[in-house]
Amino acid sequence: MAEPRKATSREVTAEIISIGDELLIGQTVNTNATWLGEQLTRVGVRPMRVHAIGDDRAEIMAALQGSRADAVLITGGLGPTKDDITKQVLCEFFGTRLVRHPDIEERIAAFFRSIGREPLEANRAQADLPEHCTVIPNARGTASGMWFERDGRIFVSMPGVPYEMRTMMEHEVLPRLVERFHPPSIIHRTILTTGLGESHLAMRIAAWEDSLAAADIRLAYLPSPGLVKLRLSTYANQDQAAAKSRVDAKAAELYQLIPDLVFGEGEERLEQVVGRLLKERGNTMSLAESCTGGYVSHLITGVPGSSAYYIGGVVSYANAVKMEELGIPSDMLELNGAVSQPVVERMALGVRQALRTDWSVALSGVAGPDGGTEEKPVGTVWIAVAGPEGVKAEKVYYPGTRDLVIKRSALAALNMLRKRLISAS
Amino acid sequence: MAEPRKATSREVTAEIISIGDELLIGQTVNTNATWLGEQLTRVGVRPMRVHAIGDDRAEIMAALQGSRADAVLITGGLGPTKDDITKQVLCEFFGTRLVRHPDIEERIAAFFRSIGREPLEANRAQADLPEHCTVIPNARGTASGMWFERDGRIFVSMPGVPYEMRTMMEHEVLPRLVERFHPPSIIHRTILTTGLGESHLAMRIAAWEDSLAAADIRLAYLPSPGLVKLRLSTYANQDQAAAKSRVDAKAAELYQLIPDLVFGEGEERLEQVVGRLLKERGNTMSLAESCTGGYVSHLITGVPGSSAYYIGGVVSYANAVKMEELGIPSDMLELNGAVSQPVVERMALGVRQALRTDWSVALSGVAGPDGGTEEKPVGTVWIAVAGPEGVKAEKVYYPGTRDLVIKRSALAALNMLRKRLISAS
Repeated sequence: MAEPRKATSREVTAEIISIGDELLIGQTVNTNATWLGEQLTRVGVRPMRVHAIGDDRAEIMAALQGSRADAVLITGGLGPTKDDITKQVLCEFFGTRLVRHPDIEERIAAFFRSIGREPLEANRAQADLPEHCTVIPNARGTASGMWFERDGRIFVSMPGVPYEMRTMMEHEVLPRLVERFHPPSIIHRTILTTGLGESHLAMRIAAWEDSLAAADIRLAYLPSPGLVKLRLSTYANQDQAAAKSRVDAKAAELYQLIPDLVFGEGEERLEQVVGRLLKERGNTMSLAESCTGGYVSHLITGVPGSSAYYIGGVVSYANAVKMEELGIPSDMLELNGAVSQPVVERMALGVRQALRTDWSVALSGVAGPDGGTEEKPVGTVWIAVAGPEGVKAEKVYYPGTRDLVIKRSALAALNMLRKRLISAS
Repeated sequence: MAEPRKATSREVTAEIISIGDELLIGQTVNTNATWLGEQLTRVGVRPMRVHAIGDDRAEIMAALQGSRADAVLITGGLGPTKDDITKQVLCEFFGTRLVRHPDIEERIAAFFRSIGREPLEANRAQADLPEHCTVIPNARGTASGMWFERDGRIFVSMPGVPYEMRTMMEHEVLPRLVERFHPPSIIHRTILTTGLGESHLAMRIAAWEDSLAAADIRLAYLPSPGLVKLRLSTYANQDQAAAKSRVDAKAAELYQLIPDLVFGEGEERLEQVVGRLLKERGNTMSLAESCTGGYVSHLITGVPGSSAYYIGGVVSYANAVKMEELGIPSDMLELNGAVSQPVVERMALGVRQALRTDWSVALSGVAGPDGGTEEKPVGTVWIAVAGPEGVKAEKVYYPGTRDLVIKRSALAALNMLRKRLISAS
């Protein structure tokens, strides 16, 4: 057995092999790999590849033979049915054979008796495990994990059932991996921006980005509709505090550079930031949505505790609702059309008054695919925010699918409210 | 160039290479691979592997060199920033070089001008494409796709942005793959159910499921929150009509078996089914949402053309809104609590009257994580549907996260409306 390595700054790599036909045919999303990637990254191990393959001997063998990472994490194919062949292929790969483990067989039998069933031979056979491996207990199921070492690399096989795998990974595998490889620890900060697309954002912060290399910091752009997350990361080999202050210094520079675009950090969502600002101020809000059809309200109410500041909203899909519930004069609608500054401002004022809130947001636009005109093409959205100091409206334009128009204008509306809340304080 | 193959029953295989650091570190779930796997399976191509790798030259090269499938589908790494290197590595692998395509550059420039921005050089550089490849147009973005052939195999590079990739796959790549390889055709029918979880559904249809093998039909359960899709499939090598009638016969049996659970087929969504039923009847609807906070409204308005039947809604998050906008007497709220049959029925009646619609749906429940009591635990939701023949309410109970409570009760509400619409006709 190889001598355990000492703490080192050498990068430790991992590779994930997810086994199961259901992953290939679109039946199951490979969330196991996503979760494993996150866990590995958190402890400073770099995931370099994910493979998803079927329950197929040749494919599993090829993936094992082609692996190069320090740690190979295998999930799936450990069930009691015929198509689960991972154990057999691992035996073949490591030149060993399955032997029955009486203690594990007894655990499996006890588990089945505890739920009032006699274990079948297929269940008992889950106690057949490779002769030369370290068996890893499964606290939540009957498929044991297996830990192999070869040439200073390790191979771990875990069940594919997410909650069994996660428990095994958290309590058994991850601590052993850290103990075995002493990965360099990593400092991360993820800064959330909205209001500028990836390439324009990149241009605006180009000089700052160029300065990161000297501080040994890596930057990743993580775009999603309406948002770009900027993730700063650096290794913290010897001096955690020094690494942290290097990242913090660069983050502070970024805040200075794009104060208008940054809205939060980490896993925070824009609607959470808005909720936090409202709560801090003891303020309430309401919504009048047309083109977004309730999506902004859905975002706001997705935050636990939002009833503390969100009073309610009106989805005014038909013009009649705009007139009756929000008090929009019919001649205003006729003169300007529903997608217009006067109407959206009146919507915001109307709902704010009706629901007696400190703030209100209104949206009216053309989500498409139909209803666009030359003057107001699909993607045109008017957004108004009304508050103690009056109402302000802005027109945005997000050409794209109906779904994207809705999502982007919703984020734009939340961001307008966020800015108003900040500048009002 | 290889001779196009003739129609054959030989299996056609595919391999998916997903490129992007965000896929490895747990930042992004690889839903592109899931969707591609489903699409390929649908047309009779067998996905044999999925790789997710970083934006790393050596890794991309290794994945290309190690590929063995007839069709290699690559997504990601085509963006305008420095870390997007897929094109360069493809050039290296195929021994070609990037050349600027003036027509595509013009398209990109026009796209940016249409949204009022000047294209940057980084944007224009997206028109730099390998000299020896077939360029595949991107109807939704600025990163073109690329189609390469080598030794009778094809390699396709597509953007990683899901809606760009999906449009390109559906309209360009998938038809070309079928044309190129003539995969054995597969007959599918996907029957959509709601109202029963996967394992209980499986128990209820067990005998029918056992009868499928004799008809050479395979069944896949495709569960998502609140729904289970049942996909029937069979190969139709020689006789398409016979295969289709085999599947149709089994589908008809299933409809007989679970008429209460089936709501549609294929890609149809429950809100589309509801919309179709409303349109057929020339009817309108409105919503009063409490715990779902606008999510039902968001689902309804996600359907293009929904303004034909959806008049609007009220999100009555605070009790004051329930009282004022929906006419709920305060003593009714005090006596029964907001999560109760009388209140939810009154909400439905109130919004139906206020917005003068044929139908209305109201929801009031405890989405959690706080607010549950012993009598009304988190996950308790009252749903009412009001229509020409009066109002009816049902209590459902979906223990789970806030997000799941919202999603499941929204589907339950749509399903209640669907049943009422059908039985009213």
